[in-house]
Amino acid sequence: MDLLSIKDPSFLKTLSNNELEKLSAEIRQFLIEKLSETGGHIGPNLGVVELTIALHKVFDSPQDKFIWDVGHQSYVHKILTGRAGDFDTLRQYKGLSGFPKRDESEHDVWETGHSSTSLSAAMGMVIARDIKKSKEHIIPIIGDGALTGGMALEALNHIGHEQKDMIVVLNDNEMSIAPNVGALHNVLGRLRTAGKYHWVKDELEYLLKKIPAVGGKLAATAERVKDSLKYMLVSGVFFEELGFTYLGPVDGHNYDDLFENLQYAKKTSGPVLLHVITKKGKGYQPAESDKVGTWHGTGPYKIETGDFVKPKVIGPAWSKLVSDTVQKLAREDERIVAITPAMPVGSKLEAFAQEFPDRMFDVGIAEQHAATVAAGLATQDMKPFLAIYSTFLQRAYDQVVHDICRQNLNVFIGIDRAGLVGADGETHQGVFDIAFLRHVPNIVVMMAKDENEGQHLVNTALKYNDGPIALRYARGNGLGVAMDEELKVISIGTWEVLKQGTDAVILTFGTTIEMAMEAAAILEKQGKSIRVVNARFIKPLDEKMLHEIFAEEMPILTIEEAILQGGFGSSVLEFAQEHQYTQTVISRIGIPDRFIEHGSVSKLLEEIEMTTEHVVHKLEAMIPKHEQKVLRS
Amino acid sequence: MDLLSIKDPSFLKTLSNNELEKLSAEIRQFLIEKLSETGGHIGPNLGVVELTIALHKVFDSPQDKFIWDVGHQSYVHKILTGRAGDFDTLRQYKGLSGFPKRDESEHDVWETGHSSTSLSAAMGMVIARDIKKSKEHIIPIIGDGALTGGMALEALNHIGHEQKDMIVVLNDNEMSIAPNVGALHNVLGRLRTAGKYHWVKDELEYLLKKIPAVGGKLAATAERVKDSLKYMLVSGVFFEELGFTYLGPVDGHNYDDLFENLQYAKKTSGPVLLHVITKKGKGYQPAESDKVGTWHGTGPYKIETGDFVKPKVIGPAWSKLVSDTVQKLAREDERIVAITPAMPVGSKLEAFAQEFPDRMFDVGIAEQHAATVAAGLATQDMKPFLAIYSTFLQRAYDQVVHDICRQNLNVFIGIDRAGLVGADGETHQGVFDIAFLRHVPNIVVMMAKDENEGQHLVNTALKYNDGPIALRYARGNGLGVAMDEELKVISIGTWEVLKQGTDAVILTFGTTIEMAMEAAAILEKQGKSIRVVNARFIKPLDEKMLHEIFAEEMPILTIEEAILQGGFGSSVLEFAQEHQYTQTVISRIGIPDRFIEHGSVSKLLEEIEMTTEHVVHKLEAMIPKHEQKVLRS
Repeated sequence: MDLLSIKDPSFLKTLSNNELEKLSAEIRQFLIEKLSETGGHIGPNLGVVELTIALHKVFDSPQDKFIWDVGHQSYVHKILTGRAGDFDTLRQYKGLSGFPKRDESEHDVWETGHSSTSLSAAMGMVIARDIKKSKEHIIPIIGDGALTGGMALEALNHIGHEQKDMIVVLNDNEMSIAPNVGALHNVLGRLRTAGKYHWVKDELEYLLKKIPAVGGKLAATAERVKDSLKYMLVSGVFFEELGFTYLGPVDGHNYDDLFENLQYAKKTSGPVLLHVITKKGKGYQPAESDKVGTWHGTGPYKIETGDFVKPKVIGPAWSKLVSDTVQKLAREDERIVAITPAMPVGSKLEAFAQEFPDRMFDVGIAEQHAATVAAGLATQDMKPFLAIYSTFLQRAYDQVVHDICRQNLNVFIGIDRAGLVGADGETHQGVFDIAFLRHVPNIVVMMAKDENEGQHLVNTALKYNDGPIALRYARGNGLGVAMDEELKVISIGTWEVLKQGTDAVILTFGTTIEMAMEAAAILEKQGKSIRVVNARFIKPLDEKMLHEIFAEEMPILTIEEAILQGGFGSSVLEFAQEHQYTQTVISRIGIPDRFIEHGSVSKLLEEIEMTTEHVVHKLEAMIPKHEQKVLRS
Repeated sequence: MDLLSIKDPSFLKTLSNNELEKLSAEIRQFLIEKLSETGGHIGPNLGVVELTIALHKVFDSPQDKFIWDVGHQSYVHKILTGRAGDFDTLRQYKGLSGFPKRDESEHDVWETGHSSTSLSAAMGMVIARDIKKSKEHIIPIIGDGALTGGMALEALNHIGHEQKDMIVVLNDNEMSIAPNVGALHNVLGRLRTAGKYHWVKDELEYLLKKIPAVGGKLAATAERVKDSLKYMLVSGVFFEELGFTYLGPVDGHNYDDLFENLQYAKKTSGPVLLHVITKKGKGYQPAESDKVGTWHGTGPYKIETGDFVKPKVIGPAWSKLVSDTVQKLAREDERIVAITPAMPVGSKLEAFAQEFPDRMFDVGIAEQHAATVAAGLATQDMKPFLAIYSTFLQRAYDQVVHDICRQNLNVFIGIDRAGLVGADGETHQGVFDIAFLRHVPNIVVMMAKDENEGQHLVNTALKYNDGPIALRYARGNGLGVAMDEELKVISIGTWEVLKQGTDAVILTFGTTIEMAMEAAAILEKQGKSIRVVNARFIKPLDEKMLHEIFAEEMPILTIEEAILQGGFGSSVLEFAQEHQYTQTVISRIGIPDRFIEHGSVSKLLEEIEMTTEHVVHKLEAMIPKHEQKVLRS
């Protein structure tokens, strides 16, 4: 059928299984083709084609509500709810989001991006439904990886206790982004191989009847054995213990199996956990045979070969630069231990893991635990490297405050994907970390101007013994600069003048240094002399240099690819206020007070007026103003 | 024996059970007496007397490491490690902390205050031990309530997977602060009544041998039954599923039982979960018979009667004022639902729960889940009231950002215990919330000058339909002002001039208004005219009033009982910068860039120079400066 003609999922109701099989194939073909151009989360979506179709056939969205955990597996749902025509714009500026969006469709009832929120959101909706006494089904769909996130486990505990009607679909594909770790993963593994509970139950009852009648204590035990029938074998006992009716495992690519179990779940009262086994990348060989997570989310690729269309890059990927440097240092210092919350691939820690298998820990999607494991290590004089994306570090804010910084422990936090990340959009922009770390006592926060300084700052961090230290680094690659052979230690709280100048000074760091230098060069041609400072320590500030700058009474422009409120620029304002430097004009450029959507980073920077051109204008406006003032006083 | 003579726990090694019983009684007597004077966490500590003694007898601290989850149950540990003499200063300024402190003793290896961190910290220590190839035992002691915190569950998942040696002592007292909720609590309940696993196992094996030989499919099932022996009955199956050796339940007040099981745990390799049943408040009748958590942590009390020595208060407790107002409004608006993460007593929600049992949810120690349940409710046009302490809201930072604010949902967050909290110290001060919320788009943050305005702001919050809105309120009580009968809505982003003045203006809110008014009165006598503004909206600012103030070029002093970095004062600096108000002298008073220890709030405010006297000095310094400048220009 023409996928573009789909308006809503109602057409599914009358399709036969054969027709559904055909539709599945068409959707797969559509996704493989479209994503080869745009990139996107191909693996997860190919895995849930039948599951999504079955859900939309058995239930009635939007009255019944699907809550897609993480949300990157919602492409099939988007196709079935009338959005196939928008896939050419997927994850592009003003185009279709790669995640559910409430303003895209009434079928998107919950927005995500971060993992493990679906069960809690669903619980809120269930409570609302029961107070309103309405009857809709609330159906969170959560992956096996996301299930190990602390908030999902908190939710299981609460849902199992309340015993309200909810159908939790556990989409078990044996890997989330990387292969999953954790005891819960082992629980699921046993379930997958154990076969279906209800098949075994009858046989067990038969067997137990064969136990001879006995007296006394033994009889009590035998009685207990019978009472405990539902806990027999391992099938679902973990979830049954938590108060769920466990159904499964279900073959997530078999319509008969799916319909039978979804119908059963629909009729069951109380919380149900429907365990569906799917194959990530199903139907596209390169993705299906992926063992490490390369095909979880990709850029464009060649369909025939599965080769990725590599974007032209110059320098090393920032994640790799940082992890490689940590690895290098780990050869000399056996106290160095790497910790990742389920991002060994994204954080480029595979090589570290291979060289130091006993000193690398993937703790699963568990940022809170990851941060406090690092703190625990540090109490024992170890040197933990906690690699974590800026946006996911938000999950560990309290652990950073309460466990790491309050105890002033030597934890090195690698804040990956700091700044705008582009296509993943609102939920993934790494723009809050400066604002949520800068006010935390004891922490040092850094960002490098290029990969050479980057390696020195990694070295600085791992040689630092006075408390927590964080290095921010961008998504993407370095500049291709020459790399020093020998690693240096850079003095904490020291900035660097990249270009001298006397009319105004730009204080900036990391990715925005480039636009500062360009703007300075443009203004240089107009006869204006702009100093550019690499403010590589975001906390603590280089107070010595600041005093010098303020003494010169030059206008100051701060630039940061981070939220302005409470950010780096604000810390310069605070410094000026504390020292009563009232004669200096200060301006700040950064992310405004709203969430930044998806799109290419360059488009987004343009939208929020963070471009070379804008920096030039801003400086032009500041310099005369300042001269005027100096003349007047 | 003389508890004051204890230097370290080595004396325990040679004591008989009889002598230990005597010691337990002495420690109980000591705690009951000392805490009747100082207040403190009497219930939890009376519950762990035998457990703590047994741990210190069987293991060798500080080589073996005890990690006390939450930490308020470490008093007995403090006595046994030579700190009995300090109990007169418990929780007082520069006195003994109510929590483990690494600088108090080498036996305190981990600091806490927030719950559920012990397992992650222990995992870090275990990894360090194994890399160093040393042999010490790592023993986290965690309560049944804390076990439901997401990060503890994340840790269980990881610990079970890694299979490293660790002894988790589950201190199950059937209630944490309030009676526990959650499916896991039910799991523990079943375990408590199920009897010991190893007793049953032998009998089961005997019974299973009686199963006649069978062929085919049945034989396979029978085989599986035998393989699954350890999953038989419900004893510990939840923890066994997660990869732990489950031991228990153990009578936590019986030395024989404790020693037998601790010794067994000591010899067992891999992770062990030792389930110890204790009675909170054991040995002191009023605390022992407590069913709701009144005796969890208390102020001074009369030993004979168990009556609390009530401090003199004037106004209603802030928590009660807020909860009562929510309750009042809930009578008219059935969309109002209250959510608490295990704090129904602290947040004074008992009356709400009684009147609206179906609209009040205690979700357990699970701040992340609580916040996202509220978000889920709000998507369904409900009006959730999320009551949460400032310090614990740190745990839900990502959920506030990603789920509540990004989706701009109508969640009312009641930020209880905002500002300094006093005796609980570093881990509990509510001083970061302004800095970690102010940079989050879409949220409104408020604080009231008194309880009358407080009730109006609660009403404002629950009538507000444009997104998330938070009200901060202090630990402690209102001022005893007259209360309006009718609730008003206060216009978002509007401040209020409390006192006119022309020489300088103080912008402040909440608890610090009092010192601002006092300072203004003192300066009034010196002929200086100070304006005092109730800046009840911390975000958004009252921009109209700010423009007027800046137009008058008066010096501005901001005062906030919150961290200065990125705080309210910084937002005033940002406003001044954005509008290039460079002629105005601005000063900020607030919490400096370090963690604030325990002690009475008044002592702490004195230490950090937040007193009326200091405000007066600050203003005196600002006013001439400003006049000079005005003259000069």
